[in-house]
Amino acid sequence: MFTYKRRIRFGDTDPFGIAYFAAYLNYFKEALDEFLRFIGFSPEYFYRNKERGYAFPIVSCAANYYKPLRYDDEVEIEIDFEIKKRSILFKFKCKDGVADGNIVCVCIDKTWKSIEIPREVREKFDKAFK
Amino acid sequence: MFTYKRRIRFGDTDPFGIAYFAAYLNYFKEALDEFLRFIGFSPEYFYRNKERGYAFPIVSCAANYYKPLRYDDEVEIEIDFEIKKRSILFKFKCKDGVADGNIVCVCIDKTWKSIEIPREVREKFDKAFK
Amino acid sequence: MFTYKRRIRFGDTDPFGIAYFAAYLNYFKEALDEFLRFIGFSPEYFYRNKERGYAFPIVSCAANYYKPLRYDDEVEIEIDFEIKKRSILFKFKCKDGVADGNIVCVCIDKTWKSIEIPREVREKFDKAFK
Amino acid sequence: MFTYKRRIRFGDTDPFGIAYFAAYLNYFKEALDEFLRFIGFSPEYFYRNKERGYAFPIVSCAANYYKPLRYDDEVEIEIDFEIKKRSILFKFKCKDGVADGNIVCVCIDKTWKSIEIPREVREKFDKAFK
Repeated sequence: MFTYKRRIRFGDTDPFGIAYFAAYLNYFKEALDEFLRFIGFSPEYFYRNKERGYAFPIVSCAANYYKPLRYDDEVEIEIDFEIKKRSILFKFKCKDGVADGNIVCVCIDKTWKSIEIPREVREKFDKAFK
Repeated sequence: MFTYKRRIRFGDTDPFGIAYFAAYLNYFKEALDEFLRFIGFSPEYFYRNKERGYAFPIVSCAANYYKPLRYDDEVEIEIDFEIKKRSILFKFKCKDGVADGNIVCVCIDKTWKSIEIPREVREKFDKAFK
Repeated sequence: MFTYKRRIRFGDTDPFGIAYFAAYLNYFKEALDEFLRFIGFSPEYFYRNKERGYAFPIVSCAANYYKPLRYDDEVEIEIDFEIKKRSILFKFKCKDGVADGNIVCVCIDKTWKSIEIPREVREKFDKAFK
Repeated sequence: MFTYKRRIRFGDTDPFGIAYFAAYLNYFKEALDEFLRFIGFSPEYFYRNKERGYAFPIVSCAANYYKPLRYDDEVEIEIDFEIKKRSILFKFKCKDGVADGNIVCVCIDKTWKSIEIPREVREKFDKAFK
Protein backbone atom coordinates (compact mmCIF):
# COMPACT_ATOMS: atom_id res chain seq x y z
CA MET A 1 0.00 0.00 0.00
CA PHE A 2 1.30 3.47 -0.86
CA THR A 3 0.51 6.41 1.41
CA TYR A 4 1.11 10.15 1.06
CA LYS A 5 1.08 12.62 3.94
CA ARG A 6 0.83 16.40 3.96
CA ARG A 7 -0.42 19.23 6.10
CA ILE A 8 -3.50 21.39 5.65
CA ARG A 9 -2.09 24.80 4.67
CA PHE A 10 -3.29 28.40 4.46
CA GLY A 11 -5.40 28.64 1.35
CA ASP A 12 -6.67 25.07 1.85
CA THR A 13 -9.39 26.02 4.32
CA ASP A 14 -12.85 27.51 4.15
CA PRO A 15 -13.48 30.69 6.17
CA PHE A 16 -14.35 28.51 9.17
CA GLY A 17 -10.87 26.97 9.29
CA ILE A 18 -11.99 23.57 7.90
CA ALA A 19 -10.12 21.98 4.96
CA TYR A 20 -12.01 23.05 1.86
CA PHE A 21 -13.63 20.36 -0.36
CA ALA A 22 -11.64 21.30 -3.50
CA ALA A 23 -8.34 21.14 -1.58
CA TYR A 24 -8.78 17.36 -1.22
CA LEU A 25 -8.67 16.98 -5.01
CA ASN A 26 -5.30 18.71 -4.93
CA TYR A 27 -4.19 16.35 -2.16
CA PHE A 28 -5.35 13.34 -4.21
CA LYS A 29 -3.43 14.66 -7.22
CA GLU A 30 -0.27 15.13 -5.14
CA ALA A 31 -0.66 11.58 -3.79
CA LEU A 32 -1.07 10.36 -7.37
CA ASP A 33 2.12 12.14 -8.48
CA GLU A 34 4.10 10.58 -5.65
CA PHE A 35 2.59 7.14 -6.35
CA LEU A 36 3.58 7.46 -10.02
CA ARG A 37 7.11 8.35 -8.98
CA PHE A 38 7.11 5.36 -6.57
CA ILE A 39 6.29 2.91 -9.39
CA GLY A 40 8.89 4.44 -11.69
CA PHE A 41 7.16 7.22 -13.65
CA SER A 42 8.10 10.84 -13.78
CA PRO A 43 4.63 12.42 -13.28
CA GLU A 44 5.21 14.79 -16.18
CA TYR A 45 5.95 11.90 -18.58
CA PHE A 46 2.95 9.91 -17.40
CA TYR A 47 0.40 12.69 -17.96
CA ARG A 48 1.79 13.69 -21.34
CA ASN A 49 4.48 11.52 -22.86
CA LYS A 50 5.44 13.28 -26.08
CA GLU A 51 8.27 10.88 -26.85
CA ARG A 52 6.11 7.76 -26.74
CA GLY A 53 3.03 9.48 -28.16
CA TYR A 54 0.53 8.82 -25.38
CA ALA A 55 -1.08 10.87 -22.64
CA PHE A 56 -3.29 10.19 -19.60
CA PRO A 57 -5.63 13.15 -19.12
CA ILE A 58 -7.97 13.16 -16.12
CA VAL A 59 -11.53 12.51 -17.35
CA SER A 60 -13.37 12.42 -14.05
CA CYS A 61 -12.98 12.79 -10.31
CA ALA A 62 -15.16 12.38 -7.25
CA ALA A 63 -14.84 12.84 -3.50
CA ASN A 64 -16.84 12.14 -0.36
CA TYR A 65 -16.29 13.97 2.91
CA TYR A 66 -17.06 12.35 6.28
CA LYS A 67 -15.09 14.18 8.97
CA PRO A 68 -13.55 17.67 9.06
CA LEU A 69 -9.83 18.41 9.07
CA ARG A 70 -8.49 21.76 10.24
CA TYR A 71 -5.57 24.04 9.36
CA ASP A 72 -2.22 22.44 10.28
CA ASP A 73 -3.72 18.93 10.68
CA GLU A 74 -1.98 16.18 8.76
CA VAL A 75 -3.89 14.23 6.16
CA GLU A 76 -2.65 10.75 5.28
CA ILE A 77 -3.87 9.33 1.97
CA GLU A 78 -3.78 5.69 0.88
CA ILE A 79 -3.83 5.12 -2.85
CA ASP A 80 -4.98 2.04 -4.76
CA PHE A 81 -5.84 1.52 -8.45
CA GLU A 82 -7.72 -0.61 -10.98
CA ILE A 83 -6.16 -0.80 -14.40
CA LYS A 84 -8.69 -1.28 -17.23
CA LYS A 85 -8.17 -1.66 -20.98
CA ARG A 86 -8.02 2.05 -21.82
CA SER A 87 -8.18 3.78 -18.44
CA ILE A 88 -6.93 3.67 -14.88
CA LEU A 89 -9.13 4.24 -11.84
CA PHE A 90 -7.12 5.68 -8.94
CA LYS A 91 -8.76 5.30 -5.52
CA PHE A 92 -7.90 7.49 -2.53
CA LYS A 93 -8.70 6.98 1.14
CA CYS A 94 -7.89 9.52 3.86
CA LYS A 95 -6.95 7.86 7.14
CA ASP A 96 -9.46 7.70 10.01
CA GLY A 97 -12.41 7.82 7.63
CA VAL A 98 -11.94 11.52 6.88
CA ALA A 99 -12.69 11.36 3.15
CA ASP A 100 -12.30 9.21 0.05
CA GLY A 101 -12.47 9.68 -3.69
CA ASN A 102 -11.17 8.75 -7.09
CA ILE A 103 -9.58 10.07 -10.25
CA VAL A 104 -9.91 8.41 -13.66
CA CYS A 105 -7.25 8.84 -16.35
CA VAL A 106 -7.86 7.70 -19.92
CA CYS A 107 -5.05 6.74 -22.29
CA ILE A 108 -5.10 8.77 -25.51
CA ASP A 109 -2.84 9.14 -28.52
CA LYS A 110 -1.66 12.32 -30.23
CA THR A 111 -5.03 12.78 -31.93
CA TRP A 112 -6.83 12.72 -28.51
CA LYS A 113 -8.42 9.32 -29.39
CA SER A 114 -8.56 6.76 -26.58
CA ILE A 115 -6.18 3.85 -27.05
CA GLU A 116 -5.24 0.68 -25.20
CA ILE A 117 -2.81 1.26 -22.36
CA PRO A 118 0.73 0.62 -23.67
CA ARG A 119 2.38 -2.54 -22.38
CA GLU A 120 5.29 -0.57 -20.82
CA VAL A 121 2.79 1.38 -18.68
CA ARG A 122 0.77 -1.68 -17.74
CA GLU A 123 3.91 -3.48 -16.58
CA LYS A 124 4.85 -0.75 -14.12
CA PHE A 125 1.38 -0.86 -12.59
CA ASP A 126 1.38 -4.68 -12.48
CA LYS A 127 4.55 -4.59 -10.39
CA ALA A 128 3.35 -1.73 -8.16
CA PHE A 129 2.43 -3.54 -4.98
CA LYS A 130 4.54 -6.68 -5.44
CA MET B 1 -31.62 29.08 -15.61
CA PHE B 2 -28.74 30.69 -13.70
CA THR B 3 -25.31 30.94 -15.32
CA TYR B 4 -21.92 32.06 -14.01
CA LYS B 5 -19.01 33.13 -16.18
CA ARG B 6 -15.33 33.52 -15.36
CA ARG B 7 -11.94 33.31 -16.97
CA ILE B 8 -9.29 30.63 -16.63
CA ARG B 9 -6.52 32.33 -14.61
CA PHE B 10 -2.87 31.74 -13.81
CA GLY B 11 -2.78 29.02 -11.19
CA ASP B 12 -5.83 27.32 -12.75
CA THR B 13 -3.85 25.46 -15.40
CA ASP B 14 -1.71 22.38 -15.55
CA PRO B 15 1.87 22.76 -16.87
CA PHE B 16 0.54 22.27 -20.41
CA GLY B 17 -1.67 25.38 -20.23
CA ILE B 18 -4.93 23.42 -19.88
CA ALA B 19 -7.44 24.23 -17.11
CA TYR B 20 -6.60 21.89 -14.26
CA PHE B 21 -9.25 19.36 -13.11
CA ALA B 22 -9.37 20.66 -9.52
CA ALA B 23 -9.88 24.25 -10.74
CA TYR B 24 -13.34 23.29 -12.05
CA LEU B 25 -14.45 22.43 -8.53
CA ASN B 26 -13.51 25.96 -7.53
CA TYR B 27 -15.47 27.29 -10.51
CA PHE B 28 -18.50 25.19 -9.49
CA LYS B 29 -18.21 26.53 -5.95
CA GLU B 30 -18.06 30.13 -7.20
CA ALA B 31 -21.11 29.47 -9.41
CA LEU B 32 -22.89 28.03 -6.37
CA ASP B 33 -22.08 31.11 -4.27
CA GLU B 34 -23.46 33.42 -6.94
CA PHE B 35 -26.55 31.25 -7.39
CA LEU B 36 -27.18 31.38 -3.63
CA ARG B 37 -26.87 35.16 -3.73
CA PHE B 38 -29.27 35.22 -6.72
CA ILE B 39 -31.98 33.36 -4.77
CA GLY B 40 -31.49 35.56 -1.72
CA PHE B 41 -28.86 33.91 0.47
CA SER B 42 -25.62 35.38 1.64
CA PRO B 43 -23.27 32.45 0.86
CA GLU B 44 -21.72 32.72 4.30
CA TYR B 45 -25.09 32.39 6.03
CA PHE B 46 -26.11 29.45 3.87
CA TYR B 47 -23.01 27.35 4.57
CA ARG B 48 -23.00 28.06 8.30
CA ASN B 49 -25.97 29.91 9.77
CA LYS B 50 -25.11 30.37 13.42
CA GLU B 51 -28.14 32.48 14.14
CA ARG B 52 -30.65 29.93 12.88
CA GLY B 53 -28.63 26.93 14.04
CA TYR B 54 -28.19 25.07 10.76
CA ALA B 55 -25.35 24.51 8.31
CA PHE B 56 -24.93 23.02 4.82
CA PRO B 57 -21.48 21.38 4.61
CA ILE B 58 -20.42 19.84 1.31
CA VAL B 59 -20.49 16.04 1.67
CA SER B 60 -19.56 15.05 -1.88
CA CYS B 61 -18.56 16.34 -5.27
CA ALA B 62 -17.89 14.91 -8.70
CA ALA B 63 -16.80 16.19 -12.11
CA ASN B 64 -16.43 14.89 -15.66
CA TYR B 65 -14.17 16.50 -18.25
CA TYR B 66 -14.90 16.28 -21.97
CA LYS B 67 -13.04 19.11 -23.73
CA PRO B 68 -10.03 21.18 -22.68
CA LEU B 69 -10.11 24.87 -21.81
CA ARG B 70 -6.98 27.00 -21.88
CA TYR B 71 -5.60 29.98 -19.94
CA ASP B 72 -7.67 33.14 -20.55
CA ASP B 73 -10.62 31.20 -22.04
CA GLU B 74 -14.00 31.94 -20.54
CA VAL B 75 -15.95 29.16 -18.89
CA GLU B 76 -19.73 29.56 -18.62
CA ILE B 77 -21.47 27.38 -16.05
CA GLU B 78 -25.17 26.59 -15.82
CA ILE B 79 -26.45 25.56 -12.42
CA ASP B 80 -29.50 23.50 -11.54
CA PHE B 81 -30.52 21.73 -8.31
CA GLU B 82 -32.65 18.99 -6.76
CA ILE B 83 -33.84 19.64 -3.25
CA LYS B 84 -34.30 16.48 -1.15
CA LYS B 85 -35.51 16.05 2.43
CA ARG B 86 -32.14 16.58 4.13
CA SER B 87 -29.81 17.51 1.30
CA ILE B 88 -29.48 19.54 -1.89
CA LEU B 89 -27.86 18.25 -5.08
CA PHE B 90 -26.35 21.09 -7.13
CA LYS B 91 -25.70 20.25 -10.79
CA PHE B 92 -23.23 22.15 -12.95
CA LYS B 93 -22.83 22.17 -16.73
CA CYS B 94 -20.06 24.00 -18.55
CA LYS B 95 -21.19 25.41 -21.90
CA ASP B 96 -20.26 23.67 -25.15
CA GLY B 97 -19.98 20.29 -23.42
CA VAL B 98 -16.69 21.18 -21.75
CA ALA B 99 -17.39 19.55 -18.38
CA ASP B 100 -20.13 18.84 -15.86
CA GLY B 101 -20.35 17.88 -12.22
CA ASN B 102 -22.20 18.15 -8.95
CA ILE B 103 -21.88 19.16 -5.32
CA VAL B 104 -24.07 17.76 -2.52
CA CYS B 105 -24.74 19.75 0.66
CA VAL B 106 -26.40 18.15 3.67
CA CYS B 107 -28.37 20.12 6.24
CA ILE B 108 -27.06 19.64 9.78
CA ASP B 109 -27.78 21.17 13.18
CA LYS B 110 -25.31 22.45 15.78
CA THR B 111 -24.46 18.90 16.88
CA TRP B 112 -23.48 17.97 13.26
CA LYS B 113 -26.55 15.66 12.98
CA SER B 114 -28.42 15.74 9.66
CA ILE B 115 -31.82 17.43 9.89
CA GLU B 116 -34.70 18.23 7.55
CA ILE B 117 -34.11 21.31 5.46
CA PRO B 118 -35.74 24.30 7.24
CA ARG B 119 -38.86 25.65 5.57
CA GLU B 120 -37.29 29.13 5.10
CA VAL B 121 -34.49 27.57 3.06
CA ARG B 122 -36.80 25.33 1.05
CA GLU B 123 -38.97 28.33 0.14
CA LYS B 124 -36.08 30.25 -1.39
CA PHE B 125 -35.15 27.27 -3.56
CA ASP B 126 -38.78 26.66 -4.54
CA LYS B 127 -38.97 30.19 -5.92
CA ALA B 128 -35.55 30.04 -7.58
CA PHE B 129 -36.49 29.64 -11.23
CA LYS B 130 -40.03 31.03 -11.09
CA MET C 1 -8.01 54.93 -14.08
CA PHE C 2 -8.67 51.23 -14.54
CA THR C 3 -10.28 49.23 -11.73
CA TYR C 4 -10.93 45.52 -11.28
CA LYS C 5 -13.43 44.05 -8.85
CA ARG C 6 -13.82 40.54 -7.52
CA ARG C 7 -15.02 38.66 -4.48
CA ILE C 8 -13.02 36.92 -1.78
CA ARG C 9 -13.67 33.21 -2.41
CA PHE C 10 -13.26 29.92 -0.57
CA GLY C 11 -9.58 29.05 -0.74
CA ASP C 12 -8.64 32.75 -0.53
CA THR C 13 -8.88 32.97 3.25
CA ASP C 14 -6.76 32.00 6.19
CA PRO C 15 -8.31 29.70 8.81
CA PHE C 16 -9.70 32.79 10.58
CA GLY C 17 -11.83 33.78 7.57
CA ILE C 18 -9.58 36.71 6.57
CA ALA C 19 -8.34 37.09 2.97
CA TYR C 20 -4.93 35.42 2.90
CA PHE C 21 -1.85 37.52 2.02
CA ALA C 22 -0.89 35.44 -1.03
CA ALA C 23 -4.42 35.68 -2.44
CA TYR C 24 -3.88 39.43 -3.03
CA LEU C 25 -1.05 38.65 -5.45
CA ASN C 26 -3.51 36.55 -7.42
CA TYR C 27 -5.98 39.46 -7.34
CA PHE C 28 -3.27 41.85 -8.57
CA LYS C 29 -2.42 39.42 -11.36
CA GLU C 30 -6.08 39.17 -12.40
CA ALA C 31 -6.34 42.98 -12.36
CA LEU C 32 -3.22 43.13 -14.52
CA ASP C 33 -4.67 40.66 -17.04
CA GLU C 34 -7.86 42.70 -17.33
CA PHE C 35 -5.90 45.94 -17.64
CA LEU C 36 -3.80 44.42 -20.44
CA ARG C 37 -6.99 43.38 -22.22
CA PHE C 38 -8.37 46.91 -21.71
CA ILE C 39 -5.38 48.52 -23.46
CA GLY C 40 -5.52 46.03 -26.30
CA PHE C 41 -3.34 43.06 -25.33
CA SER C 42 -4.35 39.47 -25.04
CA PRO C 43 -2.73 38.63 -21.66
CA GLU C 44 -1.24 35.43 -23.10
CA TYR C 45 0.48 37.35 -25.92
CA PHE C 46 1.80 39.99 -23.55
CA TYR C 47 3.47 37.57 -21.14
CA ARG C 48 4.98 35.42 -23.87
CA ASN C 49 4.71 36.63 -27.45
CA LYS C 50 6.26 33.88 -29.54
CA GLU C 51 5.38 35.50 -32.84
CA ARG C 52 7.13 38.79 -32.06
CA GLY C 53 9.93 37.19 -30.06
CA TYR C 54 9.54 39.00 -26.76
CA ALA C 55 8.22 38.10 -23.33
CA PHE C 56 7.42 39.96 -20.08
CA PRO C 57 8.16 37.64 -17.14
CA ILE C 58 7.42 38.85 -13.63
CA VAL C 59 10.72 39.59 -11.86
CA SER C 60 9.41 40.93 -8.57
CA CYS C 61 6.32 41.64 -6.55
CA ALA C 62 5.45 43.23 -3.23
CA ALA C 63 2.36 43.86 -1.14
CA ASN C 64 1.36 45.75 2.00
CA TYR C 65 -1.70 44.91 4.04
CA TYR C 66 -3.51 47.55 6.11
CA LYS C 67 -7.07 46.34 6.76
CA PRO C 68 -8.59 42.86 6.69
CA LEU C 69 -11.11 41.64 4.11
CA ARG C 70 -13.33 38.64 4.78
CA TYR C 71 -14.86 35.81 2.74
CA ASP C 72 -17.48 37.11 0.29
CA ASP C 73 -16.33 40.76 0.61
CA GLU C 74 -15.61 42.56 -2.64
CA VAL C 75 -12.14 43.89 -3.31
CA GLU C 76 -11.79 46.73 -5.79
CA ILE C 77 -8.33 47.27 -7.24
CA GLU C 78 -7.03 50.38 -9.02
CA ILE C 79 -4.11 49.83 -11.35
CA ASP C 80 -1.48 52.30 -12.51
CA PHE C 81 1.91 51.81 -14.19
CA GLU C 82 5.32 53.34 -14.88
CA ILE C 83 6.93 52.29 -18.12
CA LYS C 84 10.76 52.25 -18.05
CA LYS C 85 13.28 51.43 -20.74
CA ARG C 86 13.29 47.66 -20.23
CA SER C 87 10.64 47.05 -17.62
CA ILE C 88 7.16 48.03 -16.49
CA LEU C 89 6.18 48.70 -12.89
CA PHE C 90 2.50 47.93 -12.27
CA LYS C 91 1.04 49.54 -9.15
CA PHE C 92 -2.08 48.23 -7.39
CA LYS C 93 -4.26 49.92 -4.78
CA CYS C 94 -7.17 48.22 -3.05
CA LYS C 95 -10.02 50.62 -2.31
CA ASP C 96 -10.55 51.98 1.21
CA GLY C 97 -6.88 51.60 2.06
CA VAL C 98 -7.13 47.81 2.38
CA ALA C 99 -3.82 46.94 0.70
CA ASP C 100 -1.43 47.99 -2.05
CA GLY C 101 1.41 46.46 -3.98
CA ASN C 102 3.28 46.15 -7.23
CA ILE C 103 4.46 43.74 -9.89
CA VAL C 104 7.48 44.35 -12.13
CA CYS C 105 7.72 42.75 -15.59
CA VAL C 106 10.97 42.87 -17.57
CA CYS C 107 11.08 42.66 -21.35
CA ILE C 108 13.25 39.80 -22.61
CA ASP C 109 14.01 38.24 -25.97
CA LYS C 110 14.08 34.55 -26.92
CA THR C 111 17.47 34.08 -25.23
CA TRP C 112 16.04 35.41 -21.90
CA LYS C 113 18.22 38.58 -22.23
CA SER C 114 16.56 41.85 -21.22
CA ILE C 115 15.79 44.13 -24.15
CA GLU C 116 14.25 47.55 -24.72
CA ILE C 117 10.47 47.49 -24.70
CA PRO C 118 9.28 47.21 -28.33
CA ARG C 119 7.68 50.35 -29.75
CA GLU C 120 4.36 48.54 -30.44
CA VAL C 121 4.09 47.67 -26.74
CA ARG C 122 5.11 51.14 -25.56
CA GLU C 123 2.47 52.73 -27.78
CA LYS C 124 -0.37 50.77 -26.24
CA PHE C 125 0.73 51.82 -22.76
CA ASP C 126 1.18 55.45 -23.82
CA LYS C 127 -2.44 55.56 -24.94
CA ALA C 128 -3.74 53.70 -21.88
CA PHE C 129 -5.30 56.50 -19.87
CA LYS C 130 -5.84 59.01 -22.67
CA MET D 1 19.97 27.30 9.21
CA PHE D 2 16.46 25.94 8.65
CA THR D 3 15.44 24.72 5.18
CA TYR D 4 12.12 23.58 3.74
CA LYS D 5 11.73 21.53 0.59
CA ARG D 6 8.70 20.87 -1.57
CA ARG D 7 7.76 20.12 -5.15
CA ILE D 8 6.19 22.38 -7.74
CA ARG D 9 2.67 20.97 -8.14
CA PHE D 10 -0.21 21.25 -10.61
CA GLY D 11 -1.87 24.59 -9.95
CA ASP D 12 1.50 26.16 -9.07
CA THR D 13 2.49 26.85 -12.66
CA ASP D 14 1.67 29.42 -15.28
CA PRO D 15 0.30 28.17 -18.63
CA PHE D 16 3.89 27.78 -19.85
CA GLY D 17 4.73 25.20 -17.16
CA ILE D 18 6.86 27.62 -15.08
CA ALA D 19 6.27 28.02 -11.33
CA TYR D 20 3.90 30.97 -10.99
CA PHE D 21 5.09 34.07 -9.06
CA ALA D 22 2.29 33.92 -6.46
CA ALA D 23 3.02 30.24 -5.75
CA TYR D 24 6.36 31.26 -4.19
CA LEU D 25 4.55 33.27 -1.54
CA ASN D 26 2.69 30.09 -0.61
CA TYR D 27 6.02 28.23 -0.50
CA PHE D 28 7.49 30.95 1.77
CA LYS D 29 4.44 30.69 4.04
CA GLU D 30 4.79 26.91 4.25
CA ALA D 31 8.49 27.30 5.06
CA LEU D 32 7.54 29.82 7.76
CA ASP D 33 5.01 27.42 9.30
CA GLU D 34 7.58 24.63 9.45
CA PHE D 35 10.21 26.99 10.89
CA LEU D 36 7.76 28.07 13.60
CA ARG D 37 7.11 24.43 14.45
CA PHE D 38 10.89 23.83 14.51
CA ILE D 39 11.43 26.56 17.13
CA GLY D 40 8.52 25.32 19.23
CA PHE D 41 5.41 27.15 18.04
CA SER D 42 2.24 25.64 16.71
CA PRO D 43 1.74 27.85 13.61
CA GLU D 44 -1.91 28.41 14.53
CA TYR D 45 -0.98 29.72 17.99
CA PHE D 46 1.70 31.99 16.62
CA TYR D 47 -0.50 33.74 14.07
CA ARG D 48 -3.42 34.18 16.46
CA ASN D 49 -2.88 33.30 20.10
CA LYS D 50 -6.27 33.82 21.74
CA GLU D 51 -5.15 32.47 25.09
CA ARG D 52 -2.24 34.88 25.47
CA GLY D 53 -4.00 37.76 23.73
CA TYR D 54 -1.54 38.46 20.91
CA ALA D 55 -1.44 37.86 17.17
CA PHE D 56 1.13 38.17 14.37
CA PRO D 57 -0.68 39.17 11.16
CA ILE D 58 1.33 39.48 7.95
CA VAL D 59 1.67 43.19 7.09
CA SER D 60 3.87 42.95 4.02
CA CYS D 61 5.60 40.57 1.65
CA ALA D 62 7.95 40.80 -1.30
CA ALA D 63 9.64 38.44 -3.73
CA ASN D 64 12.26 38.54 -6.47
CA TYR D 65 12.51 35.94 -9.22
CA TYR D 66 15.82 35.13 -10.92
CA LYS D 67 15.56 31.67 -12.50
CA PRO D 68 12.55 29.60 -13.55
CA LEU D 69 11.44 26.39 -11.86
CA ARG D 70 9.17 23.92 -13.64
CA TYR D 71 6.41 21.49 -12.67
CA ASP D 72 7.75 18.62 -10.52
CA ASP D 73 11.03 20.42 -9.74
CA GLU D 74 11.98 20.64 -6.10
CA VAL D 75 12.38 24.03 -4.47
CA GLU D 76 14.54 24.26 -1.35
CA ILE D 77 14.01 27.32 0.82
CA GLU D 78 16.34 28.66 3.50
CA ILE D 79 14.75 30.82 6.15
CA ASP D 80 16.33 33.46 8.35
CA PHE D 81 14.81 36.24 10.49
CA GLU D 82 15.40 39.61 12.20
CA ILE D 83 13.42 40.22 15.34
CA LYS D 84 12.59 43.88 15.99
CA LYS D 85 10.71 45.54 18.86
CA ARG D 86 7.21 45.06 17.46
CA SER D 87 7.70 43.00 14.32
CA ILE D 88 9.62 40.10 12.81
CA LEU D 89 11.16 40.12 9.36
CA PHE D 90 11.33 36.62 7.86
CA LYS D 91 13.80 36.22 4.99
CA PHE D 92 13.57 33.43 2.40
CA LYS D 93 16.15 32.25 -0.11
CA CYS D 94 15.48 29.58 -2.72
CA LYS D 95 18.52 27.42 -3.41
CA ASP D 96 20.63 27.98 -6.55
CA GLY D 97 19.63 31.63 -6.75
CA VAL D 98 16.13 30.83 -7.98
CA ALA D 99 14.27 33.46 -5.95
CA ASP D 100 14.23 35.27 -2.63
CA GLY D 101 11.77 37.29 -0.60
CA ASN D 102 10.44 38.25 2.78
CA ILE D 103 7.36 38.36 4.98
CA VAL D 104 6.87 40.82 7.84
CA CYS D 105 4.62 39.98 10.81
CA VAL D 106 3.65 42.64 13.34
CA CYS D 107 2.70 41.83 16.92
CA ILE D 108 -0.75 43.13 17.88
CA ASP D 109 -3.07 42.81 20.85
CA LYS D 110 -6.79 42.04 20.90
CA THR D 111 -7.64 45.61 19.85
CA TRP D 112 -5.43 45.26 16.72
CA LYS D 113 -2.91 47.78 18.18
CA SER D 114 0.76 46.97 17.66
CA ILE D 115 2.53 45.92 20.85
CA GLU D 116 6.03 44.88 21.90
CA ILE D 117 6.79 41.26 21.15
CA PRO D 118 6.07 39.22 24.32
CA ARG D 119 9.15 37.88 26.11
CA GLU D 120 8.00 34.24 25.68
CA VAL D 121 7.94 34.70 21.89
CA ARG D 122 11.27 36.53 21.81
CA GLU D 123 12.93 33.75 23.78
CA LYS D 124 11.96 31.06 21.29
CA PHE D 125 13.40 33.11 18.44
CA ASP D 126 16.57 33.91 20.39
CA LYS D 127 17.24 30.19 20.80
CA ALA D 128 16.31 29.34 17.19
CA PHE D 129 19.72 28.78 15.64
CA LYS D 130 21.72 28.01 18.78
